[in-house]
Amino acid sequence: MRKVAIGIDIGGTNSVIGIVDEKGEVLSRGNIPTDKYDDINLYVNELSSAVKDCLKTIEEDIEVNGIGIGAPNGNHYSGTIEYAPNLKFKGVVPLVELLKEKFDYPVITLTNDANAAAIGEMIYGGAKWMKNFIMITLGTGLGSGIVINEEMVYGHDGFAGELGHVIVEKGGRKCGCGRRGCLETYCSATGIVRTIYDLLGDTMEPSVLREQVSSGTLSSKSIYDAAVAGDKLALEAFDFTAEKLGEALANAVAFSSPEAIFLFGGLANAGDMIIKPTKKYMEENLLKIYQNKVDIIKSELPGADAAVLGASSLVWQELRK
Amino acid sequence: MRKVAIGIDIGGTNSVIGIVDEKGEVLSRGNIPTDKYDDINLYVNELSSAVKDCLKTIEEDIEVNGIGIGAPNGNHYSGTIEYAPNLKFKGVVPLVELLKEKFDYPVITLTNDANAAAIGEMIYGGAKWMKNFIMITLGTGLGSGIVINEEMVYGHDGFAGELGHVIVEKGGRKCGCGRRGCLETYCSATGIVRTIYDLLGDTMEPSVLREQVSSGTLSSKSIYDAAVAGDKLALEAFDFTAEKLGEALANAVAFSSPEAIFLFGGLANAGDMIIKPTKKYMEENLLKIYQNKVDIIKSELPGADAAVLGASSLVWQELRK
Repeated sequence: MRKVAIGIDIGGTNSVIGIVDEKGEVLSRGNIPTDKYDDINLYVNELSSAVKDCLKTIEEDIEVNGIGIGAPNGNHYSGTIEYAPNLKFKGVVPLVELLKEKFDYPVITLTNDANAAAIGEMIYGGAKWMKNFIMITLGTGLGSGIVINEEMVYGHDGFAGELGHVIVEKGGRKCGCGRRGCLETYCSATGIVRTIYDLLGDTMEPSVLREQVSSGTLSSKSIYDAAVAGDKLALEAFDFTAEKLGEALANAVAFSSPEAIFLFGGLANAGDMIIKPTKKYMEENLLKIYQNKVDIIKSELPGADAAVLGASSLVWQELRK
Repeated sequence: MRKVAIGIDIGGTNSVIGIVDEKGEVLSRGNIPTDKYDDINLYVNELSSAVKDCLKTIEEDIEVNGIGIGAPNGNHYSGTIEYAPNLKFKGVVPLVELLKEKFDYPVITLTNDANAAAIGEMIYGGAKWMKNFIMITLGTGLGSGIVINEEMVYGHDGFAGELGHVIVEKGGRKCGCGRRGCLETYCSATGIVRTIYDLLGDTMEPSVLREQVSSGTLSSKSIYDAAVAGDKLALEAFDFTAEKLGEALANAVAFSSPEAIFLFGGLANAGDMIIKPTKKYMEENLLKIYQNKVDIIKSELPGADAAVLGASSLVWQELRK
């Protein structure tokens, strides 16, 4: 009988379901729209049906060990989603409690998406034998999951690990959080687009990106393509992004001295274009005792299934305790 | 029979010994000069004799549970002191191994002084029921000890928790570590003296501190006294120190979301003069989810015995595991 865990990744648009075994093989997949529901009870009903449908498609004998959920602003301690700006469910949503009414598994647990990615990396990916590492997710914003002594760092209130909101530039760029100079205003898909705007304003340098701005096609992906093609502004934007990220990571290393830092998500797919200069700037800013000890590695979670793998891994992590 | 632990605090000048019970009562004290010895073997011989002498002075029945040592650059994993700049023992010194040849206790363990202070606070002081907190020691430099999920954060290599070397000002003040802009160049006994020099150069403001510079009596203590007496420059220096510290602590909170941050050592003795503005600047820089949750507290370890209490607490912490 194969042991499996149910992984659910809740995004603003879609909620993706995966039934995953201990090795990270996804036996069945499903999804429902998230943004169709204003009412959390209707959403949970629909989600539960979809999970049951997924389970039915598996023909071999399985033992379901639990449900792991990754969600924006998911709080591991309380099992609630709290004031997630990109979800229609407002206020504090007791998701774990509601799912416990539907399912009787030993583990039903929740955390935020970056933490889920970190645990996924530890259970299935490149961090398998690591006790101390940091996961940085470079999506629309910058998320982070920190593992110390083989345990996720949740902090006193369940909200630890917000490296996207470390202030790296006093009085710097305005951030969605209401403050200025947060790391994610520089190092994220939106951050690198803002850097291009800065550079376009600052110089007269010709660049294919100028046309993309006017045609509305500028994106982190188009900046990457331009950089690969040798566009000077695009290359400068990657270098600047890496400089900010490298400096911030050097400070993070002084905190927890990890074995490695993993990069995950859109910008991380730029591979060496972002990883090599980030490593260089990090090393330049590290205290001597940490130099040449900390790897920067692209996440080894497979792109399409990464989010549900991360979510499902919460179950195995919980059962290890 | 009273259970006791031996605490040894190794400083550049003196090594202080204390025999401490589980409640933090110091039953016997001793010390030997550290800087008299170039040879670690001679030092360990002398230290061992001094410890035995201390034990002999105790008349009641005791059960010795182990030895805990706090030392600059002490590595908990390897039990070695590594390249401590202010000790005469050069290179890597296998202190725990050498002490194990002299004593047969179940626990003989070592860490750096700031980590020892953090564990001391957790065992005997103000952090007794806390699972997540940060200790900042404001001495000649700035040291830190981070506790997460009730465990000391040592990191991959044993050197985690060097918040004194987080870079808070790119291209800022030169630091003894060879880089620029480290937190301890601003927030420490030497840092606040450097701030006074900056202010004396920057303004024409009259200040008692001008005479102290020429007479060579300027110190963090004299700056504190001047601030208490209302000296404008001294007050400005405290405000600037608190601003730098508050900003750095806000970033540290985004990492581990602690319940409290403890301040320890010389500058912390300035009490509200440093704590109140540091708290204010920290709150101003915190992400909303962390606001009004994190206390800044003066260490509750009693001044004179704080270092040996910290060292001895390593033994109880080790036995708890």
